Amino acid sequence: MAIRAVVWGENIHEHINKTVAELYPDGMHATIAKALNADSAISATTATLQEAEHGLPQSRLDDTDVLVWWGHKDHGAVSDEVVERIAKRVWEGMGLIVLHSGHFSKIFKRLMGTPCALKWREAGERERLWVVNPGHPIAEGLGENFVIEYEEMYGEHFSVPEPLETVFISWFQGGEVFRSGMTWRRGAGNIFYFRPGHETYPTYHQQEVHKVLQNAVKWAHIPRPAYKAVHDAPNVPVEKALEPIVERGPKLHAAGEQGYK
Amino acid sequence: MAIRAVVWGENIHEHINKTVAELYPDGMHATIAKALNADSAISATTATLQEAEHGLPQSRLDDTDVLVWWGHKDHGAVSDEVVERIAKRVWEGMGLIVLHSGHFSKIFKRLMGTPCALKWREAGERERLWVVNPGHPIAEGLGENFVIEYEEMYGEHFSVPEPLETVFISWFQGGEVFRSGMTWRRGAGNIFYFRPGHETYPTYHQQEVHKVLQNAVKWAHIPRPAYKAVHDAPNVPVEKALEPIVERGPKLHAAGEQGYK
Amino acid sequence: MAIRAVVWGENIHEHINKTVAELYPDGMHATIAKALNADSAISATTATLQEAEHGLPQSRLDDTDVLVWWGHKDHGAVSDEVVERIAKRVWEGMGLIVLHSGHFSKIFKRLMGTPCALKWREAGERERLWVVNPGHPIAEGLGENFVIEYEEMYGEHFSVPEPLETVFISWFQGGEVFRSGMTWRRGAGNIFYFRPGHETYPTYHQQEVHKVLQNAVKWAHIPRPAYKAVHDAPNVPVEKALEPIVERGPKLHAAGEQGYK
Amino acid sequence: MAIRAVVWGENIHEHINKTVAELYPDGMHATIAKALNADSAISATTATLQEAEHGLPQSRLDDTDVLVWWGHKDHGAVSDEVVERIAKRVWEGMGLIVLHSGHFSKIFKRLMGTPCALKWREAGERERLWVVNPGHPIAEGLGENFVIEYEEMYGEHFSVPEPLETVFISWFQGGEVFRSGMTWRRGAGNIFYFRPGHETYPTYHQQEVHKVLQNAVKWAHIPRPAYKAVHDAPNVPVEKALEPIVERGPKLHAAGEQGYK
Repeated sequence: MAIRAVVWGENIHEHINKTVAELYPDGMHATIAKALNADSAISATTATLQEAEHGLPQSRLDDTDVLVWWGHKDHGAVSDEVVERIAKRVWEGMGLIVLHSGHFSKIFKRLMGTPCALKWREAGERERLWVVNPGHPIAEGLGENFVIEYEEMYGEHFSVPEPLETVFISWFQGGEVFRSGMTWRRGAGNIFYFRPGHETYPTYHQQEVHKVLQNAVKWAHIPRPAYKAVHDAPNVPVEKALEPIVERGPKLHAAGEQGYK
Repeated sequence: MAIRAVVWGENIHEHINKTVAELYPDGMHATIAKALNADSAISATTATLQEAEHGLPQSRLDDTDVLVWWGHKDHGAVSDEVVERIAKRVWEGMGLIVLHSGHFSKIFKRLMGTPCALKWREAGERERLWVVNPGHPIAEGLGENFVIEYEEMYGEHFSVPEPLETVFISWFQGGEVFRSGMTWRRGAGNIFYFRPGHETYPTYHQQEVHKVLQNAVKWAHIPRPAYKAVHDAPNVPVEKALEPIVERGPKLHAAGEQGYK
Repeated sequence: MAIRAVVWGENIHEHINKTVAELYPDGMHATIAKALNADSAISATTATLQEAEHGLPQSRLDDTDVLVWWGHKDHGAVSDEVVERIAKRVWEGMGLIVLHSGHFSKIFKRLMGTPCALKWREAGERERLWVVNPGHPIAEGLGENFVIEYEEMYGEHFSVPEPLETVFISWFQGGEVFRSGMTWRRGAGNIFYFRPGHETYPTYHQQEVHKVLQNAVKWAHIPRPAYKAVHDAPNVPVEKALEPIVERGPKLHAAGEQGYK
Repeated sequence: MAIRAVVWGENIHEHINKTVAELYPDGMHATIAKALNADSAISATTATLQEAEHGLPQSRLDDTDVLVWWGHKDHGAVSDEVVERIAKRVWEGMGLIVLHSGHFSKIFKRLMGTPCALKWREAGERERLWVVNPGHPIAEGLGENFVIEYEEMYGEHFSVPEPLETVFISWFQGGEVFRSGMTWRRGAGNIFYFRPGHETYPTYHQQEVHKVLQNAVKWAHIPRPAYKAVHDAPNVPVEKALEPIVERGPKLHAAGEQGYK
């Protein structure tokens, strides 16, 4: 069965900015989903901010293997309830790919536990992404580096937790560097942040970017049932201990009592 | 100058549970602070849930190098405002040591971005902590393992992010294991989780535990000014680029405009 | 195409020790290969110490996706030339699974750069392996823990580099713990160490162990051409710089000269 | 007591290359040692390739807290015996700082277990080092970036193991990036690789470089006795098991027998 990906788009600038509308007439989310569907291992659909529950009711998330996230102008409009719902699904094993300005999305900051801040400059400068981890599945099929001719600059320090692995580092014309592809695992779920994708440039029409996104979805996918136990803090009664033990010493909790949360 | 540590105690069970009151007549926080003060490199004071702003107004946090946290019965009583204040100070470089049941504290979950759940059993069983990272400063002066004769069991899976380093792994009589000492960095701040410390046992009167806590405070301490830049996402104007560049391509933001958050 | 795995066996104790011969009449390597072949995604063959070039000429390694290694009694008998050959293939992307007493094999020590030492006791005690990373592909299909009733004890400190991820931690009856499943990447190649497998016990006949080994082979496999560039340290001449630069300053090397190694 | 650092220099180019001789009339090692001694917490001396045992007999290494290594032209001239001796001291807890072309030194490759290869260009181009880990002790006292006006370029992919932490990433004028400051721990010893330092440029006369080297020596230092146990793989007899166990099952080793190595 194909990997079920959902591409979430904020879907605002496509309607209020002429440049963005011309570059992405069907919406950035639709362009990204189309790129993913070019890989037969992936079946991608879309969801947007404006839909009920932002297009992400529990039932749909339960049927999603990997969620791809692009937002910029109105991170605050995403409801806290949906953010918590997504976090829980990631902990259960749903993959999450966060793109570009999504570094400041509620869901990314929620899962990182850090400010996720960075430097930026919108000057259409050249970005060159270097593969620093050629054995990583997300780097598959790419050369040693590739160029995006027009991009917004993001510069260090990018205040995220030290990643599991760094896959790409970007060079910018104006003198900055950036860790542009990083992975983390949170609970059972894989997370990948990918830097490029400013809405006024044709980044999501570029072949190498398509390849990275396809690779990332396949890497993030965990082909197994949701790991629901991640939410529990079960008491293991003495009589069910794996090795026989004798209870002793003073106690705080009565038998069978729930723990505090 | 000595490292300025603040030991935060929930300070509830000491007043409502006879066993805890007898073991820690001055409060667990006071016992821990006394143990830290036995090391001349550390100057420890205390704060409790019941004080105004839980004893942690901004001015005090600004003068704190390392915060030690013990809570269990009423994590929810800690105000969200104080939690955010602590998180910001950690990102700026304040160290944080989270103890035992503090795995479910708001501040720990906030900084980890995961459920931080685990298995547990209160049966006074034997715990043996093994040093799996003998070069780590937190293991200094300890043998290859040490025993806490009476402890609550915590078992895997402990749903926290993969740590920077694992220092201790516990063996429990009833058949479980647990990663009992782990480190992370979030922003500029060092974080250490240390498992032992159930309130009905004399854990915080034990010599090896004192040594771990002293080591941890010294390890977590960063002797330098607060890293305030961690909160900023500054625009770098084209005319201030480090390498001369020429602006080009379409733009979303007018000159000097703030980014979205 | 199925993943091409080669199971390498030292193949000594099967011939000189009655217990081992009865447990593994076809050799441990054959038993392990058979377990791998039960997964249709894997095509496993065997190689042994006694064959020419230990069964691992360059041509065969070039056609191997994942190498599984079991050795114990005579690590020193493996030729240094073959060890270097294997290391190079790992850097190019071949997966390597090292089993049990293979912690002291030349190839594992070569790739880790550390002593790889540990404590041990041969007393047929109970080992319980806990999954500490339930989202990891190597833990797929396993419960939260599983027991091997008779095993040799290995205890910490296990002097290997901090792993990329820890998948299993073992509890032993006699009071020790051990990080029994760990991953590393070296060059483009994935490495997994799996602790169980003492030759006098029926470990490799156990279902859960088969599942771990199948998972590990699939995880370690990188479906792409050998990354030969890992061996090179190429000079990038000024005239071929990606961004135009002007050569300046004093030089050590004449134009086109090779670097020192 | 001050940290006992030894700066090891290959000490060849200073004698055969006019540029190097003029930049470093006392030898690069002497210049680096002088910079370290400007920090009162450090007491640095030097050793060179040409001395007996390269200036590093066992007795001296036993009295060394941190070894700093610069070599380039003749890595092969360092005896394998001395390399093994250094590796053992690192595992016991001696710090190691490897500089620039030392990426290809025997000792660095021995401890990394990988090729440690990279791209290079000697064109006197501008290098800008960005701090990507502002909380790390090695970044203390530095700004968000600093420039070395004339340097040799090193480009990715740098084939080393994923580091414990990345501290610096370099931007180069010609379009490359490089992870210029990385840390690892091997056994009990801390290792730091620092990229800059080509011999035909005045890099080791620059203030920021001095600061990094001083910070690195202080970070790498472990103030405790040598961890000799790292070399041992002791048998733990049944009668000395921490928890009482009964021996059972077939055995390979007779009582008290040594394990295989």
